[in-house]
Amino acid sequence: MIDEIRELLEVPDPALAERVASSERPWHGRIYDVETDDVICPDGSHGYREIARHHGGAGVAAVKDGKICLVRQWRVSAGRMTLEIPAGRLDEGETPDVCAARELTEETGYVADRVELVAHSMGAIGFTDECTHVYRAIGLRKSEAHPDEGEFVGIVWLPVDDVVEAIHTGLIRDSKTIVAAFDAALRAAD
Amino acid sequence: MIDEIRELLEVPDPALAERVASSERPWHGRIYDVETDDVICPDGSHGYREIARHHGGAGVAAVKDGKICLVRQWRVSAGRMTLEIPAGRLDEGETPDVCAARELTEETGYVADRVELVAHSMGAIGFTDECTHVYRAIGLRKSEAHPDEGEFVGIVWLPVDDVVEAIHTGLIRDSKTIVAAFDAALRAAD
Repeated sequence: MIDEIRELLEVPDPALAERVASSERPWHGRIYDVETDDVICPDGSHGYREIARHHGGAGVAAVKDGKICLVRQWRVSAGRMTLEIPAGRLDEGETPDVCAARELTEETGYVADRVELVAHSMGAIGFTDECTHVYRAIGLRKSEAHPDEGEFVGIVWLPVDDVVEAIHTGLIRDSKTIVAAFDAALRAAD
Repeated sequence: MIDEIRELLEVPDPALAERVASSERPWHGRIYDVETDDVICPDGSHGYREIARHHGGAGVAAVKDGKICLVRQWRVSAGRMTLEIPAGRLDEGETPDVCAARELTEETGYVADRVELVAHSMGAIGFTDECTHVYRAIGLRKSEAHPDEGEFVGIVWLPVDDVVEAIHTGLIRDSKTIVAAFDAALRAAD
C-alpha cells in the first residue's frame, strides 16, 4: 500500500498538475519571503498563487513516564502564551534531526541518544512551503539547558492524555505539538 | 489538569510575555498580509517579529470502514502532488464548522450529520497566525460533489493505518492531514 501511496504522490497527474509560468518575490523578510506565481492550470487557464517561502524548522517530542515535555512561551502570532514541543528554525546547512536534538538540549537540558522521524509536517501547505520536521527522542538523559539569548521560555512536563484532551478542547493549538502528542498517545495505546 | 493547562495558556506570564511596541504591514496579498513588529521582551530589550496574517481555514476527517478520505491535488508550495483531507479557506463571516462541512460536500460529495472538533491547528506558529480548524465527520452519507471552478482534485479512500505509515516515512506531509489521520488512528485504537 505504501508503494501505491508513493505513486499517488510522486507521479505528477497531468489532470491535476499546475505549471508555474512566472514567479516574483515582491517582499523579502528575515524569516520568510513572499512569492507570487502565475500558474497554468490543467485546463490551460491561468491562476494566481501566493507562497511564503520559509526554510523550515525541527521539533522533538520528549516523553518520559507518560509525560511530554512542553515549552511555555509567548507567541506574537497568537498574541498569547503557548505550550509547544521544543523546536526551532534550521540553522544554515543544518539537517533537521541535528536541529531537533540541538533544540531539545538548548531548551530543556535533556539529551537524546537519537531521534526518530514522526513526520515532515508542512504547516499551511496552501500558502507556505514551511516544513517542521517532527522527531521523537529515544534514550533521554538529563544535561543542562542553555537557551538562546533573547529566548524566554519555561519548561513543563504534562501527561500525554491531558495534552490530547487540551488539544480536543482547542486549548493547545500548535500543530507540531498536536502531531507529537497524538503520536505519543498512539504509541502508548499500541 | 485541564484547568491547570488553561491557566498556563490564558494567564500571561510577565517573565515571558512580549509587548508589541509598533507594527507595520509592508505587503498586502490576496491570501495573507505581511506584518513586521517591534516587540519589547520581558527584559526590556527589543525584538523583531515577522508574521504572515491569514484568515485560516477548516478541514474534515471523513472515515469509513477504517479508510480516510483524501484529496489528491497539486500544490505549488510543495511543487508536487499531495494527499490532504478535504479543506479550504474560511469564507467571509463563515464559522469553521460550517466551512468544514461545506468543503466535505463540495470536494467529496459526502454529507455529514455533524462535525466534531479535533483541533484548532496553528500550522506555523513561529511566523503566522494561520489556523486550520480540523473536524471529524459524524454520520457520513453520500451526496454529490461539486468542486469550485478552477479546483482540480481527485478523491481517494486509504486505510488509516497505511496513511499513518506514509506519514512516518515522510511521504504524506500536510499537517492538517497528519493531525486528522493520527486522531482517526487513536480512535480506532481506543
